[in-house]
Amino acid sequence: MQRYRMIVDAMGGDQAPRVVVEGSLLALREVRQRFDIVLVGRKEAVEEEIRSISGGPPPPGITIVDAPQVIEMNDAPTAALRAKKGSSIAVGLEMLKQGKGSAFVSAGNTGAVLAASTLILGKLPGVSRPTIGAFLPTETGVCLLVDAGANVDSKPRHLFEFAVMGSIYFAEMIGVKKPRVGLLSIGEESIKGDERTQQAHKLLTESNLNFIGNIEGRDILLGKSDVIVCDGFVGNVVLKFAESVLTVVKDRIKQVAFRNLFHKASLALAYGALRMAFRSFDYQEYGGVPLLGVKGVSVIGHGLSSPKAIKNMILKAEEAAEKKIPERIQSALAELLTSK
Amino acid sequence: MQRYRMIVDAMGGDQAPRVVVEGSLLALREVRQRFDIVLVGRKEAVEEEIRSISGGPPPPGITIVDAPQVIEMNDAPTAALRAKKGSSIAVGLEMLKQGKGSAFVSAGNTGAVLAASTLILGKLPGVSRPTIGAFLPTETGVCLLVDAGANVDSKPRHLFEFAVMGSIYFAEMIGVKKPRVGLLSIGEESIKGDERTQQAHKLLTESNLNFIGNIEGRDILLGKSDVIVCDGFVGNVVLKFAESVLTVVKDRIKQVAFRNLFHKASLALAYGALRMAFRSFDYQEYGGVPLLGVKGVSVIGHGLSSPKAIKNMILKAEEAAEKKIPERIQSALAELLTSK
Repeated sequence: MQRYRMIVDAMGGDQAPRVVVEGSLLALREVRQRFDIVLVGRKEAVEEEIRSISGGPPPPGITIVDAPQVIEMNDAPTAALRAKKGSSIAVGLEMLKQGKGSAFVSAGNTGAVLAASTLILGKLPGVSRPTIGAFLPTETGVCLLVDAGANVDSKPRHLFEFAVMGSIYFAEMIGVKKPRVGLLSIGEESIKGDERTQQAHKLLTESNLNFIGNIEGRDILLGKSDVIVCDGFVGNVVLKFAESVLTVVKDRIKQVAFRNLFHKASLALAYGALRMAFRSFDYQEYGGVPLLGVKGVSVIGHGLSSPKAIKNMILKAEEAAEKKIPERIQSALAELLTSK
Repeated sequence: MQRYRMIVDAMGGDQAPRVVVEGSLLALREVRQRFDIVLVGRKEAVEEEIRSISGGPPPPGITIVDAPQVIEMNDAPTAALRAKKGSSIAVGLEMLKQGKGSAFVSAGNTGAVLAASTLILGKLPGVSRPTIGAFLPTETGVCLLVDAGANVDSKPRHLFEFAVMGSIYFAEMIGVKKPRVGLLSIGEESIKGDERTQQAHKLLTESNLNFIGNIEGRDILLGKSDVIVCDGFVGNVVLKFAESVLTVVKDRIKQVAFRNLFHKASLALAYGALRMAFRSFDYQEYGGVPLLGVKGVSVIGHGLSSPKAIKNMILKAEEAAEKKIPERIQSALAELLTSK
């Protein structure tokens, strides 16, 4: 069996390197060192974190590669990439390109990871714009919203490519053979929506994807489709809105409870149910999502990732490498291009 | 004091005319006949509903104007308007135009009411595209999302006009002097977002509106801004998504509860809190919203409106007429145009 080597951006995320180191150690422990981890970042800082957590030197399975520079969360992506050639993001992706690892994982500056992955790894043939999907819980399981914010001002052709890449990713990772693809719009009929969506509807109808037509905002959480295709602007707005809902619901219940003693008594009970009910709304469970359409597995996570989320990201990255997602996307696109 | 006359589309909504008649009677009772109501629709059907509810002829304050045709909820708007000149929507709006009423209210085919209002009443000078806003509850009160789905493929200039119209509507209806205007985007910095949004950001920055910059999806429910400006495609997706959340949360809690007897016991308690917590998420409370930017008050409501929602729509329409929203928008736009 192939032994994977996961390249992890030790400096990515709001609480790096601590949280990243913790998550990496968790991942190694959970899989009993099925793979190695290369932590890329400021060597001394990373070693110190390991020492402060485990009380010793890096354990077996962990190696550290020094990258003297850090791209901060609020750096302008392309400018930062130009100015910081020795950043953990650039060094890590360069290693992946040279075959010194199986996948790259980062909870750092999303824009920078996206730009660097496209630049350093390169796009797969047939891909105009690499894309990021995001899993959302539904009444029946999960769905993949793609694009989740990587691309704005997408053209109809781009939406079509998002659908192809999203379908393959969903099929492989969730184990659904022909995922249902829905096009996010503002009405069910094909003539509803903006120009871009109407034209994408045509492209999807003519494709061999399992296209079920337009779906609306209210259908997302109902699980009407497995893959939901949209431009990254609307995708990102919806995702961030969804993330905020749990916070708001909790606050609102608290407000109501404080006004009424009887309700106050029920608060603890209601919370227990809510917590369980919302566990699957917790993006930390899903870890990061790979950038689809580049030559290699590059997984991007939330800047606020906990150690558990980092661990899950690394496991998802291993799975994506094992399932050869980039190769699968490449052959699917090649098939589509020759069959036309 | 001026006596208002509300023109109500008796045939609009999924359960028309029954629900509309019930709502109208509720409204009259609540305001002790402060205004008259003209029910426009199939005369016999409307009279029969009144008889079946009140056991007699139309009570004082209610008159019926016959409109033999009905535009169905799923008719194609412009085709239906052309084919059905005698529809309740066309007849009612024609009456408003001729000064035979103070406002028009319909829970019918949104696209048809929108098109007919623009066509029959006409646009206010300076308005490129009339718009519909929608109120959403926030942690601190309410916010107005504009455009809520009336306009797709909006240009930056249109977003700017939505902001002006939304500001005036929010200021007048909620009583906030200089409402905070936020531009919905996918990052806080002015360079974030798609082309349209970036250019609208410039127009809004140069304006005399209380523009607070970009806001993100997660800020909507937090009450970061009073007026939230966006294209109708993203506005509609977010609104419908928000509407679906309560249903999903309830189902999810139910699922959890069934798995666990202890949780089951807490279910009733949790529901009580949830119901109260979510009351302000109930669009029925807000009634309909006027189409902003046309010469007259034309209020559009949800096809699923209950009698209570119809009643609230009529009251909101009276308020909008009393506050002379169209005149206020016209003078604000004139000011903006001359000051440039």
